[in-house]
Amino acid sequence: MDKKELTVASRLIYHGKIIDVYEDDVLCPNKETAQREIVKHRGGVGVLLEIDGQFILEKQFRYAINEVIIEIPAGKLEVGEDPLESAKRQLLEETGYHPFTMFHLGDIYPTAGYSSEVIHLYYSSRAILKQRQLDRDEVIDLITLSLKDIEQLILENKIKDAKTIAAINLYKLHKEAGKI
Amino acid sequence: MDKKELTVASRLIYHGKIIDVYEDDVLCPNKETAQREIVKHRGGVGVLLEIDGQFILEKQFRYAINEVIIEIPAGKLEVGEDPLESAKRQLLEETGYHPFTMFHLGDIYPTAGYSSEVIHLYYSSRAILKQRQLDRDEVIDLITLSLKDIEQLILENKIKDAKTIAAINLYKLHKEAGKI
Repeated sequence: MDKKELTVASRLIYHGKIIDVYEDDVLCPNKETAQREIVKHRGGVGVLLEIDGQFILEKQFRYAINEVIIEIPAGKLEVGEDPLESAKRQLLEETGYHPFTMFHLGDIYPTAGYSSEVIHLYYSSRAILKQRQLDRDEVIDLITLSLKDIEQLILENKIKDAKTIAAINLYKLHKEAGKI
Repeated sequence: MDKKELTVASRLIYHGKIIDVYEDDVLCPNKETAQREIVKHRGGVGVLLEIDGQFILEKQFRYAINEVIIEIPAGKLEVGEDPLESAKRQLLEETGYHPFTMFHLGDIYPTAGYSSEVIHLYYSSRAILKQRQLDRDEVIDLITLSLKDIEQLILENKIKDAKTIAAINLYKLHKEAGKI
């Protein structure tokens, strides 16, 4: 059986700078009709950066959850931007590190239930420190943690960011498989 | 320094059944002003269910990404619903399993950049099979996988769902720490 839901009607509700919002009517594979509220997002990147056996993470206030959280360096794709180039750009801007090598850990869907967003995750362990170039509305503190520290923070639920927890899982699996 | 961004103005753009969308003007801690596009979401739950050493996952078409994906049983909170009760309800509805015990793996932010959503993650290894009660617009296939199978699918980037990858990481850390 084809599992796809077919679009019957699509209404643009909001055209923002970061997200577009649509309200769609769909026909389900079981012939039921349903309404889907959908956020369209260009996608983003995240980079797990390891320097001399330590990982460079960020502490950043996130307005949507009204909290300072710990997360890997990350950001949104520009229009038409290649994910790998975007990852290199964002890493330099946010941390000051220019990476020489980037390993693709995988792509993840943070919120498949209502958002089209894909986050492309990378790992780098070879980078040179240059100059940070934060956006004017960005306030980001850098922190340096060992893998053990990070795993303890995940276990204690002090790191709650899904892409960061997923990136650590992907890193460990690729490490165990001898791929990085 | 206080890291918070202060709300200067908040405009409701869309009031949906699943999401509300706001466009807010904020004052950043560095005194810059910025606009934030925010999705408000009641939050959700996800359950990693282990039966006789195998995990029960789902294959489900997700309209927002136009793809059938593999993920743990999950769903949205009803208004005022307790996360633990919601997790038990959704597990029964989607898989037919009524859990006797539920271990709280942790809470995650799937998309802290623009959504208020929190997903409460649980683990259960004691459950009895009853009757599934899918919503009329839900079409979900159940699949049974070993931890090794799941990790291979994550490594091959065939499981891309962030909450599922995060849940596996949290499960392994709690297991290693002797907590489950």
